[in-house]
Amino acid sequence: MPKKVAIIMGSDSDFPVVKSALTELKAYGVPFECRVMSAHRTPAEACEFAANAKANGFGVIICAAGMAAHLAGVVAGHTTLPVIGIPMKSSVLDGMDALLSTVMMPPGVPVATVGINGAKNAAILAVQMLAVSDDTLADKIAENKKAMADVVIEKDAKLQQEILNL
Amino acid sequence: MPKKVAIIMGSDSDFPVVKSALTELKAYGVPFECRVMSAHRTPAEACEFAANAKANGFGVIICAAGMAAHLAGVVAGHTTLPVIGIPMKSSVLDGMDALLSTVMMPPGVPVATVGINGAKNAAILAVQMLAVSDDTLADKIAENKKAMADVVIEKDAKLQQEILNL
Amino acid sequence: MPKKVAIIMGSDSDFPVVKSALTELKAYGVPFECRVMSAHRTPAEACEFAANAKANGFGVIICAAGMAAHLAGVVAGHTTLPVIGIPMKSSVLDGMDALLSTVMMPPGVPVATVGINGAKNAAILAVQMLAVSDDTLADKIAENKKAMADVVIEKDAKLQQEILNL
Amino acid sequence: MPKKVAIIMGSDSDFPVVKSALTELKAYGVPFECRVMSAHRTPAEACEFAANAKANGFGVIICAAGMAAHLAGVVAGHTTLPVIGIPMKSSVLDGMDALLSTVMMPPGVPVATVGINGAKNAAILAVQMLAVSDDTLADKIAENKKAMADVVIEKDAKLQQEILNL
Amino acid sequence: MPKKVAIIMGSDSDFPVVKSALTELKAYGVPFECRVMSAHRTPAEACEFAANAKANGFGVIICAAGMAAHLAGVVAGHTTLPVIGIPMKSSVLDGMDALLSTVMMPPGVPVATVGINGAKNAAILAVQMLAVSDDTLADKIAENKKAMADVVIEKDAKLQQEILNL
Amino acid sequence: MPKKVAIIMGSDSDFPVVKSALTELKAYGVPFECRVMSAHRTPAEACEFAANAKANGFGVIICAAGMAAHLAGVVAGHTTLPVIGIPMKSSVLDGMDALLSTVMMPPGVPVATVGINGAKNAAILAVQMLAVSDDTLADKIAENKKAMADVVIEKDAKLQQEILNL
Amino acid sequence: MPKKVAIIMGSDSDFPVVKSALTELKAYGVPFECRVMSAHRTPAEACEFAANAKANGFGVIICAAGMAAHLAGVVAGHTTLPVIGIPMKSSVLDGMDALLSTVMMPPGVPVATVGINGAKNAAILAVQMLAVSDDTLADKIAENKKAMADVVIEKDAKLQQEILNL
Amino acid sequence: MPKKVAIIMGSDSDFPVVKSALTELKAYGVPFECRVMSAHRTPAEACEFAANAKANGFGVIICAAGMAAHLAGVVAGHTTLPVIGIPMKSSVLDGMDALLSTVMMPPGVPVATVGINGAKNAAILAVQMLAVSDDTLADKIAENKKAMADVVIEKDAKLQQEILNL
Repeated sequence: MPKKVAIIMGSDSDFPVVKSALTELKAYGVPFECRVMSAHRTPAEACEFAANAKANGFGVIICAAGMAAHLAGVVAGHTTLPVIGIPMKSSVLDGMDALLSTVMMPPGVPVATVGINGAKNAAILAVQMLAVSDDTLADKIAENKKAMADVVIEKDAKLQQEILNL
Repeated sequence: MPKKVAIIMGSDSDFPVVKSALTELKAYGVPFECRVMSAHRTPAEACEFAANAKANGFGVIICAAGMAAHLAGVVAGHTTLPVIGIPMKSSVLDGMDALLSTVMMPPGVPVATVGINGAKNAAILAVQMLAVSDDTLADKIAENKKAMADVVIEKDAKLQQEILNL
Repeated sequence: MPKKVAIIMGSDSDFPVVKSALTELKAYGVPFECRVMSAHRTPAEACEFAANAKANGFGVIICAAGMAAHLAGVVAGHTTLPVIGIPMKSSVLDGMDALLSTVMMPPGVPVATVGINGAKNAAILAVQMLAVSDDTLADKIAENKKAMADVVIEKDAKLQQEILNL
Repeated sequence: MPKKVAIIMGSDSDFPVVKSALTELKAYGVPFECRVMSAHRTPAEACEFAANAKANGFGVIICAAGMAAHLAGVVAGHTTLPVIGIPMKSSVLDGMDALLSTVMMPPGVPVATVGINGAKNAAILAVQMLAVSDDTLADKIAENKKAMADVVIEKDAKLQQEILNL
Repeated sequence: MPKKVAIIMGSDSDFPVVKSALTELKAYGVPFECRVMSAHRTPAEACEFAANAKANGFGVIICAAGMAAHLAGVVAGHTTLPVIGIPMKSSVLDGMDALLSTVMMPPGVPVATVGINGAKNAAILAVQMLAVSDDTLADKIAENKKAMADVVIEKDAKLQQEILNL
Repeated sequence: MPKKVAIIMGSDSDFPVVKSALTELKAYGVPFECRVMSAHRTPAEACEFAANAKANGFGVIICAAGMAAHLAGVVAGHTTLPVIGIPMKSSVLDGMDALLSTVMMPPGVPVATVGINGAKNAAILAVQMLAVSDDTLADKIAENKKAMADVVIEKDAKLQQEILNL
Repeated sequence: MPKKVAIIMGSDSDFPVVKSALTELKAYGVPFECRVMSAHRTPAEACEFAANAKANGFGVIICAAGMAAHLAGVVAGHTTLPVIGIPMKSSVLDGMDALLSTVMMPPGVPVATVGINGAKNAAILAVQMLAVSDDTLADKIAENKKAMADVVIEKDAKLQQEILNL
Repeated sequence: MPKKVAIIMGSDSDFPVVKSALTELKAYGVPFECRVMSAHRTPAEACEFAANAKANGFGVIICAAGMAAHLAGVVAGHTTLPVIGIPMKSSVLDGMDALLSTVMMPPGVPVATVGINGAKNAAILAVQMLAVSDDTLADKIAENKKAMADVVIEKDAKLQQEILNL
């Protein structure tokens, strides 16, 4: 069985977006835990979780946070595991603040940043990381890639019908 | 004697800019300590310093950091003291990343942000905070404000000469 | 009793956002006055208010303004008190104009800037400034910090239920 | 003789750029005064100057300021004269902060904003405003427009030579 | 009677915003004409209008355009009259494209730019330009400035009531 | 022989960048003319050139301009030929003003925009347009594409050596 | 008969915007094919389509994609035909990500970029490219340009009525 | 022995920055290959490399590219391996174009993006990914983290000396 993926949100208001990461991990059969922990409001909890994550069987940590999004960086400071950051769009600036706060990490402490609100991609990226040493998982990714292509091809076919009626 | 001001830099490469904060505090006779501590590289030190700052006689904490500048936010999460953030310009994006990472704090954990590279202003702001309950300090600020105005007035006078030769 | 906090809005249309600052100050038992005064439309009133604020028993001034937000800067030019600026989001540019107009103050006249629409944080920051010399207030901040953490922990617990039903 | 144009700089460090406005006004034979006055450091001087500018024979006021550029807006709040704002580039953000701080004025108090560091254009705009009721001045503008076109045409001719050697 | 003000829109879809400029000019008793003319779709009409505007009794030209807003610049290229540009917000980028396209004019051809969607301010600015040589108009501006201040003061008074019920 | 390509610069200061477009066209054996004409300073010349370009044997027009870059849009308003716009970097804003002024054209009048300072790409794009109906030219493009790939492959080989010495 | 235009979308969700390109091409009587193909999900299909497009009778390829919009660039890498890029607005950043991803192509591989969501302009640009060697098509463009001007003139006339009732 | 890491640059001009990734991997004893391959100039090579990377013993692929940086996205479209993107700063826009082009990937094809010019962090992130299933490597990361902290602590100590001489 693959190692667990941790998904930490800075606020439970991020859940509607983050949920798609859980769905994706579930579809891959990758075990996960999902937590609300804040870099600013429950820093002790977040730091402790990060520090013990490897020992507790996690292989990757995903962090979702908006605004001055420090969660991923703070977690990355306390673990040797790869940390994936999801910059969340909030009520102003369209997530640009969260993107820069997440991606522009100083040398030594990387955060693997995905696009704004990119929860699904964060999950896929976590699976890819686990799949580096897990060929069963790698095969599933390949299958999904194939399925994803098929969807596009099908949509292309359907479009041809629509155009006829233009 | 006023409480101490702490100035924390995320990297010693920030010192050339941050130095002007120390000079300013010195001119005001405000005691200070200046430290290099990183939210990502020495998080334990930074958090511990913040958690004990009040007990250790500090009244205000100034944090200077660039890029995904998490230092001020992380420190603010561990103290009830007011935290002033100086977003540092680094090699790309002109400090916009640091500005957004510092100022866009979520509700509950404010960072008093000054302009990019605004070390002098951070020091003055710290003095103003201490001066809320310290009239001697408030008087010094008023004097400096007056001196600052005099400099402008003097420069204005000098300009009139320069213009004559245009 | 702590010194009073002044909250000045550039326009009464800012009140729905600014209100949360008042609520926060009330919860802390910090006395306040709230005014509508414009840097451009009633500059005399704004300048006079700022110039007399210290003498009138204020300890901190909060200014909320949108667009080319000059209010905080203008007020800061007329007082030695610490001035907190709230950049307000208006109908275009998501408050980026107000943020830059508020935070990028020239050396000598700082404005303690919080995030766009960050009224609640402005109030907390004001309380933190007053608490530098007021341990009762500092204790209340510590309590609130604890309560805020408890809310996150509670939400985390609740989330665990929600995930079971995913 | 046309009314005077006032040029106010927030800092004497703006003079190297602002100088080209003076040169331009001189070439038009428009009388001017040039001053250093700061919205934040000498607000009383700036406001008083603005309030009396009309009575003192000025027809237009040009204000040059960088960073959180409040000068033009503050001056506009104290006069009925048209106010032209020059957003100055400073050490970070390429003048975008000054541009937004100058141009995004709230309804009721316009600032006629020119491009970043656009001192020459500010002067021409001032002359155009005076020329609304001064046909001699309007004729000079027309002549200069013609001369400016001739320069372009001449450069175009010269370019044809250069291209031959490509 | 003051000279006429021309208001040119790049598209009739700008009218809902531009209308407030007309209302303002009407309130000042300043005669105006309002036209739809496009720098790209009816360039000949726009250029001809600009070239003849002075002879046709206009004193100021206001241009409103969105996106790659070339109208004000093109008009400014064909007249010696002062040209005011209103950058219009359109469906993307919040008017930042129009702002930069309007304000960043090259040396020699200024456009007096107001804020995004700032139609009312454009009208006031036009009136201020006409008032440079028209004291009756200048007095009206002063009255309006006074009235505007009274509105703020009144709102401030009303707010005091609202706060009591907080 | 292919139709001519016109390259118009808003200012002769653009020539050092624009020159690479001429070199590229020369290498393709495509005839061209290069002119300095300004949308704001010599609008009549620019409009007339554009209006007659097709009749004068041009197939494509390339326009290079910085700041509020109106040249390409104005030219596009006067011709049915495809117009390519090169947004030029100038002293502030890194060409973002020119990019938005060039690319965000309203419906009906497109400008084929290349990257900031993208003179070489503008030339290649012009050649591609001419090659739509000119297979000799299309073959040359294919050859150059091949050569360009070979350069990359060669550099890749060279890099392998360099790495050995790391 | 003119060569065919290919319109490729990265996702079928782009169709509501892209449709106006098809309508425009239809109005011009230019044959086209419209496809859904993704640079990331069906790269093989996209590359193969691009590589064979010229041989399959296409003269121009239009690519519409949002976010990190790689489609136009990838297609341009596989063809000598001119490639037009439409940056699509998606749920965050207003299409600025797609604009930069599309227009900032490295030297050697241009993409003719139109404005964000500029599907209609992409179609017109494609027609202009085909018209370089097709005078019938050029005449139609000229007619449409004329019709477009007439619409503006008509709207201008209608506006005069509306203003009377102001 | 850990799997190999591939580092692909879009241009050999990226090497001075990318070199620090190689140094870092070397220090970790992680085998790597470094290649110059372009998404636009040698797409076939890039796609083939990506498609075969897993079979060829690679565990992670790092891609560095500037401007409209498509390399990481294109490579990600052809492999199930995790792909790390380094947005490179180029001559304009400070790498913001490359950042958005790299990070804003559509759902299904993630790119693990690090900061602009973040070559060292890309290498560390790659090592972290390999270390998910390699405890020796994880231990080395932990050691380096410790060493990095020691450097900061040492610099902090040194700073205390410097301050004494202020």
